[in-house]
Amino acid sequence: MQQAIAILDSGVGGLTVVKEVMRQLPREKIIYFGDTARAPYGPRSTEEVTLFTEQIVDYLIQFNPKMIVIACNTATAAALDYISAKVSIPVIGVIHPGARAAISATKSGHVGVIGTIGTIGSGAYTNALKQLSPFVEVVSQACPALVPLVEQGMFRSEKSYEIVEQALEGIKDNNIDTLILGCTHYPFLVEPIGETMGPGVKLISSADETAREISTILYDKGKLSIGDESPIHQFFCSGDAEMFQRIARDWLGEQINRTPVVWQVSTL
Amino acid sequence: MQQAIAILDSGVGGLTVVKEVMRQLPREKIIYFGDTARAPYGPRSTEEVTLFTEQIVDYLIQFNPKMIVIACNTATAAALDYISAKVSIPVIGVIHPGARAAISATKSGHVGVIGTIGTIGSGAYTNALKQLSPFVEVVSQACPALVPLVEQGMFRSEKSYEIVEQALEGIKDNNIDTLILGCTHYPFLVEPIGETMGPGVKLISSADETAREISTILYDKGKLSIGDESPIHQFFCSGDAEMFQRIARDWLGEQINRTPVVWQVSTL
Repeated sequence: MQQAIAILDSGVGGLTVVKEVMRQLPREKIIYFGDTARAPYGPRSTEEVTLFTEQIVDYLIQFNPKMIVIACNTATAAALDYISAKVSIPVIGVIHPGARAAISATKSGHVGVIGTIGTIGSGAYTNALKQLSPFVEVVSQACPALVPLVEQGMFRSEKSYEIVEQALEGIKDNNIDTLILGCTHYPFLVEPIGETMGPGVKLISSADETAREISTILYDKGKLSIGDESPIHQFFCSGDAEMFQRIARDWLGEQINRTPVVWQVSTL
Repeated sequence: MQQAIAILDSGVGGLTVVKEVMRQLPREKIIYFGDTARAPYGPRSTEEVTLFTEQIVDYLIQFNPKMIVIACNTATAAALDYISAKVSIPVIGVIHPGARAAISATKSGHVGVIGTIGTIGSGAYTNALKQLSPFVEVVSQACPALVPLVEQGMFRSEKSYEIVEQALEGIKDNNIDTLILGCTHYPFLVEPIGETMGPGVKLISSADETAREISTILYDKGKLSIGDESPIHQFFCSGDAEMFQRIARDWLGEQINRTPVVWQVSTL
């Protein structure tokens, strides 16, 4: 039986990681848990986010996955170290991959970060960036209005442009050449974010970059799936199953049609 | 004493990896060996390339490095597995990072690869790409004229445009959207290669991507340098020291002025 990559998020944001894993590693089986009943995690306390993350990990670990991906920046900032110490398989978060990609991409050394209140308040991106390079300058901005826009399935609406523009006002004129989308929900809003920031700012999706690092780390550990066995993915959510499936099918597009998927609701 | 990242190449090509490691990981100490006396490796037999690579690794290992980077595609194709099995520290090559980045970058799934006769003949890129995704289409082309152009320091000459154009003739019209520069010498020629391929083709430098994966793997293993100790890099070459230093100083530019460097000649 093929071991899966277990991916978790507060809701639908982690589907941005899923999409890239499906595209970059189509041989890999995915088990996803979206805690839609309790999203968003952004405004919650560190203790609560850590508890919720641990509950999901305890649930996912019963499927004997080969890796845990905390595909939520808020949960990564709060609980990555705790979860890594707790389980015996590799655990990866979404913050360091985004930081590494930004350092690789920036020419001026001026990097911006947007994320939830929890992520930005933790200083996790600034720490990760500065740990890699003392020469990088970081400006960051919490954008609490964006996650609800995505969880409500409004990311293709006209209204999203207006809300994104307001949310980015504080970070727009900071002379940055690279902006980290430090929340896995934000790739849903890549068009309005790109339009607001302009063509001179390279957008780094922590989600896309995490998919690539999953590939690097599984390869390094000799754990990439190499056979032609076709995976069957499993998606769990804790809340409104209809909304979750609608958003997932819309976002995953052709990727989801290539591979069989099982949908389930679970309250942990 | 800070443990170094040991980086080796047939000549000056690995300096493209060095430059990116200096930029992306400025806290890390580098020990470099360029086998300029015996470059190019491209047309040599697998057995000979493996022997030369082993000799350099035996030399570098005495400095107690924390990682070995085979910053030469030809040597990676020939000797990565052999060297990985031989030493007890992590060994990374340049082929899988380039393959992963190309899979991440391509939209059409049509990827081109250029490299030496040894690299292209080994099929190592095609295997790495197909192992990751059965959906990718690969075309490849050996370009033996390009490495000598770089080793002779002619990479900024007018002549280089003409030679690059001729060398890429076979791969140009293949409807690819991504081209892997599957030789660490090729980033020296990124301008003529970019001009020849046109703006619709994204160039993937296996060198840049390797620097990023060094960061990922050292982080995963808890081996990134975190202190503010300023590293002193060491550069060895086996051939003409003056030519090597001239090319290195030109290529590394501002990176080399930030950090003290010791230059030495060694015949192994």
